[in-house]
Parts: sequence; C-alpha cells; structure tokens
Amino acid sequence: MNIKDHIGSIPGFPKEGIIFRDVTPILECPEAFEEVTKQLSQFARDVQADVIIGPEARGFFFGIPVANELKLPFVPVRKPGKLPRKTISETYELEYGTDTLCMHADSLKPENRVVIIDDLLATGGTVEAIVKLVEKQQAKVAGIGFVIELDDLKGKSKFEGIPVCSLVHFEGE
Amino acid sequence: MNIKDHIGSIPGFPKEGIIFRDVTPILECPEAFEEVTKQLSQFARDVQADVIIGPEARGFFFGIPVANELKLPFVPVRKPGKLPRKTISETYELEYGTDTLCMHADSLKPENRVVIIDDLLATGGTVEAIVKLVEKQQAKVAGIGFVIELDDLKGKSKFEGIPVCSLVHFEGE
Repeated sequence: MNIKDHIGSIPGFPKEGIIFRDVTPILECPEAFEEVTKQLSQFARDVQADVIIGPEARGFFFGIPVANELKLPFVPVRKPGKLPRKTISETYELEYGTDTLCMHADSLKPENRVVIIDDLLATGGTVEAIVKLVEKQQAKVAGIGFVIELDDLKGKSKFEGIPVCSLVHFEGE
Repeated sequence: MNIKDHIGSIPGFPKEGIIFRDVTPILECPEAFEEVTKQLSQFARDVQADVIIGPEARGFFFGIPVANELKLPFVPVRKPGKLPRKTISETYELEYGTDTLCMHADSLKPENRVVIIDDLLATGGTVEAIVKLVEKQQAKVAGIGFVIELDDLKGKSKFEGIPVCSLVHFEGE
C-alpha cells in the first residue's frame, strides 16, 4: 500500500502555476484511508495525545478517523460564524489578505496534550494559528500530523520543538 | 448512552428565534460518537450501501466514521471551488438566495447504492440537492441518515420512497 498512489496531482488548481495535491482519492479507497489513519494514529499515540484537533474541512477528513481509532475527543477548528458556543479566534496572514479560525472556548483543559491533524503542510500558516488557539487555552501541542508535506516551502520551521509527522512528501510549489 | 444528552441547544444562534442543535459535544465524547457511528452504520448496512456521501462540513463529521466502519468509499460534497477534479453541481433555494453544491463527476458508478449522511434534517434542501447529484450520475440513493431530525419542518416529505433514518428527534423550529 503506497499512500502516494492515492494522491491526485492537479496542475493549475486553484490557479495557474500551482499543482494541487488532491487527497479525495484516499477517501474513496478504504484500504488507503485505513493505512493513513493507522499511521497518523500511531504518531498521535507515540506523543501521548489525549485530544485530536482538525481544521475545516480537509482536517476533518483525517482528524476524525484518528480520534475514532484512539477513542479520543475530536475538537473542530472552524471559520467564523460556524461554532455556536463561545469561541476564541486567531487571525493570520495569507498571500493576499487574512483569514480567521475559531475554536470553542471550553473545548480544552490546561492539562490536555493535543495533536493537530491536517491534510497538507505548505507554509504552515493555518496550523500556526491553531497552535496559538491551543496555547491560549493553556493546553500543550504534543504533535502535528499531516498526510502530505511540501518540503520546499519549509513550513516545518514554524514548529520548532514540536514533533511533526508527514506521511508523504512532495518537493512542493 | 442517550445520544440526545450529547446535543447542545443554543437559543438565538445563528439568529433570533432559532434554537441551534449543536452536535460538537458528540465529537468530544468518544462513547457518544461511537454510538452514533454504530447506529448510522447499521442503517447503511441494512440498506446495502456501497458508497457513503456527506456534505461539507458537518456531514463529514458523521459520514466519514460510517464509511470507515463499513470499509466503504467516502465521497465528499462541497461548495464550489473546493474540489479540484471535474465536478457536477446543483443549485438550490435557501430562505434568502441560493446555494450550490458540487461533487466530483467521476465519483460514482451507475450501479452504486449510495447512503447520504448529514448531521441534521430541517427542510431537507441540502440533501435534496445531493439526491439530484447522485441521480445525475445514474446511481441510486439507497438511504439517508441523520443524527437529528426537526420533525415540525417535515423535511422527510421531500424523500418519498427513500428510507430515512434519524437517530434523535426535536419538534423543530
């Protein structure tokens, strides 16, 4: 089972010059999905996670199966206006403009060891914002797991001192 | 294990006069999440599903665990601009304006028996659009599963002839 065989590469999406790495073929292949879940769950177990966090929407694809596999709580990170209870938020810079992510304010306890799961590590801006949301609640980021890492973008450098696991690597662009 | 105990009720969200039914406490409680997955999976098994579909983003919460449990493919339904391969789309009416949902055009085969999973059945507009996306691909909707049904809104009447399973009922508003 080679996970990379189940990742699509779509040149020119969402814009010229980008090769989009498409994880939906993993969802469509139960054996590949199971293997991804197994490997990310092993990582989360190794770093002694007690909560799994994932950002909408592709972080839900992989964070939820890991939480289910390890029988741990799953805490969703969402865009503003989606979570109904009191939230905390973090705004971060994009190539053009900014984006904001929210988490329920009562979702973590100070002693929690959180593993953040997302589909892809590019520049790391999204997950850097999530790390701040976790730390605002005095919880600890025990690790960060990705299906794909785009090595050339050096997003990992944003997370010094935190274990990072990526299952598949591309040079990136 | 009473699933209803793990559903929050938030008055006035997202606007005055609405009681929002919040499923995120299910995600935060592994036992409740497991029970929801078990019951929806049993329904999908009973109607002989061979593909599970869920709409972004709350449909991913419950559709993905069912697909994992039954070792079936999961096909995401998303807003425009999110799916990188060729898509088909369906536009439907909201209270004010319209919304559009997309699915990869190559995601289903004519012989597929699809179960659609979402968090909540209100008026049924979202899932009605997904039924049309499935039928455009000549596949069959074998069943529709919800965690919550708001009975007073009579959304179920949109799905005559299709088995519908809802785990928890509220009078609705």
